[in-house]
Amino acid sequence: MLKVPDHQVAGHRAVGGQLGPLVDDSGRFYKPLQSEERGDTEVAFYKSFSSNTEIPAHIRQFFPVFYGTRTIEASDGSGPQPHLVMEDLVAGHVNPSVMDIKMGSRTWDPEASEKYIEKCLGKDRNSTSISLGFRISGLKVYQNNEAGFWQPDKKVVYSFNADGVRSALRKFVSSNLSLDPNADADCSYASTVYAHQGGILAQLLQLKEWFEVQTSYHFYSCSILFFYDRESALDGRAHPRVKLVDFAHVMDGCGVIDHNFLGGLCSLIKFIRDIVDEDNKCAKCDVKLGYEKTLKENGLCKSNTEAESSC
Amino acid sequence: MLKVPDHQVAGHRAVGGQLGPLVDDSGRFYKPLQSEERGDTEVAFYKSFSSNTEIPAHIRQFFPVFYGTRTIEASDGSGPQPHLVMEDLVAGHVNPSVMDIKMGSRTWDPEASEKYIEKCLGKDRNSTSISLGFRISGLKVYQNNEAGFWQPDKKVVYSFNADGVRSALRKFVSSNLSLDPNADADCSYASTVYAHQGGILAQLLQLKEWFEVQTSYHFYSCSILFFYDRESALDGRAHPRVKLVDFAHVMDGCGVIDHNFLGGLCSLIKFIRDIVDEDNKCAKCDVKLGYEKTLKENGLCKSNTEAESSC
Repeated sequence: MLKVPDHQVAGHRAVGGQLGPLVDDSGRFYKPLQSEERGDTEVAFYKSFSSNTEIPAHIRQFFPVFYGTRTIEASDGSGPQPHLVMEDLVAGHVNPSVMDIKMGSRTWDPEASEKYIEKCLGKDRNSTSISLGFRISGLKVYQNNEAGFWQPDKKVVYSFNADGVRSALRKFVSSNLSLDPNADADCSYASTVYAHQGGILAQLLQLKEWFEVQTSYHFYSCSILFFYDRESALDGRAHPRVKLVDFAHVMDGCGVIDHNFLGGLCSLIKFIRDIVDEDNKCAKCDVKLGYEKTLKENGLCKSNTEAESSC
Repeated sequence: MLKVPDHQVAGHRAVGGQLGPLVDDSGRFYKPLQSEERGDTEVAFYKSFSSNTEIPAHIRQFFPVFYGTRTIEASDGSGPQPHLVMEDLVAGHVNPSVMDIKMGSRTWDPEASEKYIEKCLGKDRNSTSISLGFRISGLKVYQNNEAGFWQPDKKVVYSFNADGVRSALRKFVSSNLSLDPNADADCSYASTVYAHQGGILAQLLQLKEWFEVQTSYHFYSCSILFFYDRESALDGRAHPRVKLVDFAHVMDGCGVIDHNFLGGLCSLIKFIRDIVDEDNKCAKCDVKLGYEKTLKENGLCKSNTEAESSC
């Protein structure tokens, strides 16, 4: 039984006779192959990556599992359409908070057509891609049963400047959005979602280490997904996840690191580290304790009396 | 007594009535202020950087010392011209081998004029800036007294692709250029110049650590200089140096890291690390020992019997 995914925050959807992505109830995600080589490029990447024995296991976990391709008949009778079949990343999550971040200050590869480069460069300059090395493509933040999700309109997200991005990354881990959307985000889940051992910051640092040496792929226009369950965040078991998606423009790295993705990744890490540091002040003297301290104290610096007692 | 510098490999020079850079015999370098705000931007950067108390001492050493500005009368009578006065980096070096590397896949800042952006983007796409995140702007490699310097023409340097860059970085630390310029570069100084403790790789890694957190400046179109004395390299005292120069397009970082410079820096580090790793194979089994091993063994892995005895 195929249905439209509940938690997609960016990317292609069903329009007119064109099928959008679908999910089944066994945890698989069906993505229609994109037109103009892009679908073929994405399938080729998944095949290459799946069989690449040089990918360390702790890096492989950042990528969706690939299950091949499948032809699906559209219900409107427009004929069979090829789909890429992969892991449904948010399967089993009831109300996941999700953020989609398109990586790189440049979303075009050097071999693309002039027309495509011009189009991408325009988008990169009109968003934060050029200035920050990444842009938020979409997000939804679960608040509670009454208020549901905070999910700003695509146009609002697209118009974010650096402050807008900073604010969205703070709201993604805050509990006070539903009362007053203009209130200062309280970042009450920053320690469990971002700073915790195995949290988003730790996962991004693992990815960064790999991007510093991997020269197999250049991930143009690829996204990083963040997601976590707020209900579990309340009792410290948020299990936040970082995943890479959208490989329709992945190119052969030809022995050179992906400095475009890596630069954006370092910038994103700095944004999140700033939130963690801000959140992680000593309760006595207001001095920032820093991320390393947070990790050392198992992500719970505020309650750590040893750290505070040194003030 | 002012004279034309001997070891400049890139950048502006004297043309027509326009003064080029000059040096004196007390170790100072006089750079004519560039036109169209660029001169003012560079002076403003040096003033800001000199008085910025947040710059750690080990980072300050990567920048030329700034001595203010001075007006110098051109000998051709074209009138007084303002100059920036800074440390002559290669003062005291008799035959320095020098490489100038323009950093960043993007040499334009987002606030520049459309015309300037178009010009820079064209140069970035026609060089390795886009593909590698940096491009070599010039180099000279001292061979010996008879052969003098190997200094490829500007046009040759400008046309380097990734292989050309790799080859130039190898030749920069090789001793067999004078016999046959097409021979495989022997990289016989790679361990003393690149891999040694305090060598170029270690200095680049220090810089990288700073660029991962500094949000004060964005260094568009800035260069990294490498230089060392070959004669001293022969007995292991090469004292290779890494310096940043050319700040005519430095912008306020506005709280965001310089992901453009950092991405290129990571890419450059990978190129040099590859040369070090290649050079640093176990003499018994040909297995690459890696840079960490090199550093651990004080840059002399090949002769280290302990490392080899484990094969």
